[in-house]
Amino acid sequence: MRIYDIIAHKRDKAELSDEEIRYFVKGYVKGEIEHYHASALLMAIYLNGMTERETVTLTKEMAESGDMLDLSGIDGITVDKHSTGGVGDKTTLIVAPIVASLGLKTAKMSGRGLGHTGGTIDKLEAIKGFCTSLSPEAFTENVKKHGICVVGQSGDLAPADKMLYALRDSTATVGSMPLIASSIMSKKLAAGAQCIVLDVKTGSGAFMKTPEEAEELSRKMVDIGNSAGRRVAAVISDMDTPLGKNIGNSLEVIEAVEVLKGKGSEDLREVCLVLAGNIIALAEGVTAEEGCKKAEAQLESGAAFEKFKEFIASQGGSLEQIENPELFPKAEFCHRIIARESGYIERMNAEMIGSSSVILGAGRAKKDDSIDFAAGIILNKKTCDRVEKGDLLATLYTNNKKSIESAERLFLDAIKISSNKKEPSPLIYKVIR
Amino acid sequence: MRIYDIIAHKRDKAELSDEEIRYFVKGYVKGEIEHYHASALLMAIYLNGMTERETVTLTKEMAESGDMLDLSGIDGITVDKHSTGGVGDKTTLIVAPIVASLGLKTAKMSGRGLGHTGGTIDKLEAIKGFCTSLSPEAFTENVKKHGICVVGQSGDLAPADKMLYALRDSTATVGSMPLIASSIMSKKLAAGAQCIVLDVKTGSGAFMKTPEEAEELSRKMVDIGNSAGRRVAAVISDMDTPLGKNIGNSLEVIEAVEVLKGKGSEDLREVCLVLAGNIIALAEGVTAEEGCKKAEAQLESGAAFEKFKEFIASQGGSLEQIENPELFPKAEFCHRIIARESGYIERMNAEMIGSSSVILGAGRAKKDDSIDFAAGIILNKKTCDRVEKGDLLATLYTNNKKSIESAERLFLDAIKISSNKKEPSPLIYKVIR
Repeated sequence: MRIYDIIAHKRDKAELSDEEIRYFVKGYVKGEIEHYHASALLMAIYLNGMTERETVTLTKEMAESGDMLDLSGIDGITVDKHSTGGVGDKTTLIVAPIVASLGLKTAKMSGRGLGHTGGTIDKLEAIKGFCTSLSPEAFTENVKKHGICVVGQSGDLAPADKMLYALRDSTATVGSMPLIASSIMSKKLAAGAQCIVLDVKTGSGAFMKTPEEAEELSRKMVDIGNSAGRRVAAVISDMDTPLGKNIGNSLEVIEAVEVLKGKGSEDLREVCLVLAGNIIALAEGVTAEEGCKKAEAQLESGAAFEKFKEFIASQGGSLEQIENPELFPKAEFCHRIIARESGYIERMNAEMIGSSSVILGAGRAKKDDSIDFAAGIILNKKTCDRVEKGDLLATLYTNNKKSIESAERLFLDAIKISSNKKEPSPLIYKVIR
Repeated sequence: MRIYDIIAHKRDKAELSDEEIRYFVKGYVKGEIEHYHASALLMAIYLNGMTERETVTLTKEMAESGDMLDLSGIDGITVDKHSTGGVGDKTTLIVAPIVASLGLKTAKMSGRGLGHTGGTIDKLEAIKGFCTSLSPEAFTENVKKHGICVVGQSGDLAPADKMLYALRDSTATVGSMPLIASSIMSKKLAAGAQCIVLDVKTGSGAFMKTPEEAEELSRKMVDIGNSAGRRVAAVISDMDTPLGKNIGNSLEVIEAVEVLKGKGSEDLREVCLVLAGNIIALAEGVTAEEGCKKAEAQLESGAAFEKFKEFIASQGGSLEQIENPELFPKAEFCHRIIARESGYIERMNAEMIGSSSVILGAGRAKKDDSIDFAAGIILNKKTCDRVEKGDLLATLYTNNKKSIESAERLFLDAIKISSNKKEPSPLIYKVIR
């Protein structure tokens, strides 16, 4: 078998055999296939696509290219949740404690934020003392004991995906449905959970700009997961507007705590309940609606919040901060953005608002940038809200005074105020199972 | 400017700007753009194509990426000829002396054979003493004095093409019309001649399998040349059957000498006259038919053969061998292939016959393989010929006895004998100017 022929086949729109895909993935990880071979093949895949079988095979090969986590030693049903990334998305902090409080086991490896989207690991690290790097033994032990453990990606999980993603990122081949689906699912398969709920975001702040794209990606990922013997559901949720009202790491932990205490933003609460409800549905064989009701009960009884505190404490995080959010370090500067006209907020570009928070220091433009945990934005108005001239739109928080001007400009560019009230777009578009 | 964006533009079927193409070529030659960037872009070009303007710009940038030969010191009109490659194609050995005998100046850099196609440099090196490597000064001096000099590619001619071709060759992106056209023409532009005749082969032994493809490539190359201020014609000629009857380096020199002496295969003689006629037409402003007649007169008067001998002697080649072809070293083994049935030769796959000669030692499977100058094939019958069972079809020559069996098998597979006489296909399909 020669990589040349594999490239030529995909170039000519042929379906690659399982053997060809295996040869490519194994050879690339071993360094026997050059980057320039891989990038030519990726561009051919980008332009000519992949069938369902090809996508499933590619995913399995990438998953098996490194360690496959073995969660079989954990009693009970292991569950995982993945978000395709958005602005203000702190759902893991709420969903994981809800389902753990019901006895499901969340053994989760999470990522860091990049660009306009945040990452769970950064948010957790905003909590004083919280440790996101545990040994494999401590990780499993925590899951067994507390039903939940969240760590940064460690070990050699799906190295083929890591290599191929880096190559796609520098050769303009990221935006391919089968490649996106296989990249996400290879890591999920390697992470070992039996039940997986995917939160597929759609809208201005998401990688999938339309619900149709989100649905296509969702179906691919569900198919891949099912082919690999996992139970999978994909929730297509709105990311045209940021989720909740707080953006930025400490601020998002604070908002998550509000929801766990039975308060907080209604949209955030609803998305979390649907995600948790679907995890419960997959794990326990009930309907998503029944799952949702169970999840709601855990929020209302305080059981989810208790589980959250147990989880935070188990990884060394400060419960004092959780109980008293005013103890989170404050940003030195805060700047109020005032409405310059009256009307209704017609749109609020989530990507631009996310980028505005990155300017303030809440995120990373490049992988190695440092993060200011206190930086971020609290939204006072959201899409469809009525606004009077002089109203507070949002407050910017930062330790870098110089960033405020350009962050405000970008924020204002992201918002359109008009005289007609817009119909709100659905918060949940669809659930694919 | 970023290579990422250039790749993304071509991926999305946009037309690249001159600046983008320049940035890519210059950056790649300098090593600032990685091979994996270039191969992703090449695959996007392969699949999404290039406009005429893009192709012209790419060609000029590749031509200007290294030395541009300056032939302005040579009195008279400089001419060049290029063949897209075929089996038994010894036309340069005949065409160059014809036009040089009329005062035109052929300053030619030629290539070596690879795969089933031969190369002029290998053929010339079959002549005892012939030197294909001259200093730039000696090269120009020879052209001035003798009107003709043929050397191997030397110096730093179109290094961008060299790098990109090597990359295309290993990433399955060779077969793209704009890339083929720009590759050929970048070298022709850098080689400096004012008038260029392209011999675009079509058929089973050619890279362009159909006359339509050959015409598309021809038009692109003529357009590129004209855009760069050169006079260009493309002759689309048949390569469905090998050209002439001798294949292999010494054997082809011997056949070229036959034609120069006014004898030899009719098909070979005709293609050479059309090529020479078109060169004369471009250079002197006469019609191709008039050019053709002038060329024929040079063959008949012996002037072309005299010029050939002058050319061979000027580069150190043995005139004794030229005058007495039996002095070329003989192959140790010769094997006669006999017809096993009667009928008409319906087809004769030129690529397979070329590959059969490679097996005998006449060509290279890989770049670094050595060549047996005495090896090759003499065809006794060609497409459309009547054959009786027991007739001699061809004779194989080699110094490697073990190669004979598989060379014969491939030769016989290449030939189809049937009961109906086939209409001969045209030798010259079209001339594009």
